[in-house]
Amino acid sequence: MDVSEVVLLDFWASLFCMRVKIALAEKGVQYDCKEENLANKSQLLLQMNPVHKKIPVLIHHGKPISESNIIVQYIDEAWQNKHPPLLPSDPYLKAQARFWADFVDKKINDGARRIWSTKGEELEKAKREFIEWLNVLEEQLGDKAYLMGESFGYADIAMVPFYCWFYALETIGKMSIEKECPKVVAWMKRCMERESVSKSLPDPHKVYEFRLQKLNNKTT
Amino acid sequence: MDVSEVVLLDFWASLFCMRVKIALAEKGVQYDCKEENLANKSQLLLQMNPVHKKIPVLIHHGKPISESNIIVQYIDEAWQNKHPPLLPSDPYLKAQARFWADFVDKKINDGARRIWSTKGEELEKAKREFIEWLNVLEEQLGDKAYLMGESFGYADIAMVPFYCWFYALETIGKMSIEKECPKVVAWMKRCMERESVSKSLPDPHKVYEFRLQKLNNKTT
Repeated sequence: MDVSEVVLLDFWASLFCMRVKIALAEKGVQYDCKEENLANKSQLLLQMNPVHKKIPVLIHHGKPISESNIIVQYIDEAWQNKHPPLLPSDPYLKAQARFWADFVDKKINDGARRIWSTKGEELEKAKREFIEWLNVLEEQLGDKAYLMGESFGYADIAMVPFYCWFYALETIGKMSIEKECPKVVAWMKRCMERESVSKSLPDPHKVYEFRLQKLNNKTT
Repeated sequence: MDVSEVVLLDFWASLFCMRVKIALAEKGVQYDCKEENLANKSQLLLQMNPVHKKIPVLIHHGKPISESNIIVQYIDEAWQNKHPPLLPSDPYLKAQARFWADFVDKKINDGARRIWSTKGEELEKAKREFIEWLNVLEEQLGDKAYLMGESFGYADIAMVPFYCWFYALETIGKMSIEKECPKVVAWMKRCMERESVSKSLPDPHKVYEFRLQKLNNKTT
């Protein structure tokens, strides 16, 4: 396959781009990765995602797809003959996988961002709520290997990029996620054993430095 | 079909419940509708959606599905042999339909809620932005009958419930949506010609009274 057929407009620290990279790696799809400068977005990005002007954008045969979870579903459907399937085929299980990916977007993402952006009382509240939402995942996991059962898929792909934020969240928030949610951390480590995941996630220390720099830029 | 097979936990003024009712009507699925008292939620709701505790919940053969857009996709997939299909079968077009439904959730919904909840300068800003986002839909519509082309489907179902809010938004916001976005209003009217839509949307005056009551409760 000619790699110019598939292009990803990327930013290394974006969780949402990591989802797309994991899905492409799972399906064994070769692609050309273009790193964006978010302070000076490329004409290609503005043209390919004129509504949100955000990464990630997957360009397949010149046609753009935006919004990470929508892109992951697209990858599963466009390369449906390539193993493994990322979503279950049963409509009810598919709805459940979508529910958990949506939960991660609404609750885990919001919780993590509030830990970056708050201080004092508000930070304490954000931490409590973040752990509370992780505990919902802890309960859903139970003794399963992955969120939906024995196979890695769409719901896991939605969540696992957050794992490379855990070090920064724990350091900034002064907390131990593993102590509070051991099953979630074991699940994240299990996902990291997949090359598709480990090769798509940056070094957590690099993410921490990046966060710290953003926080410092905000306060100076 | 025994109607107890399909149960909707509903609230008459919820846009999200309307989406589900339209999808069920399009597919000709009979169901039992249980109106919830949101000030005193039923045990059934708390048990069926323990994570978000929100309507709508569709219960099919005793198994719950939550989050309106996920439910609509489930309806399309679980009753895939029933005409019409709500999502296109082509993966790219499917991704586009999901993109627009997601856009409505993120932008139109947020914009409308800010018109309810703000005053003065902030209200003026909320109105400008709401119209700006509607204009994105205006542009996407172009000369098409529906958002994705000539067939009514998933993206239209995501948007059309907002039409029964337009009267309240125009009255509270002192503006004419039709003047600003004539194609959007023509599209909404075209959707309303479908019995699946007109029977699922409440009287806009009733919605306005309901909103006014909520606003008054907030300020007293």
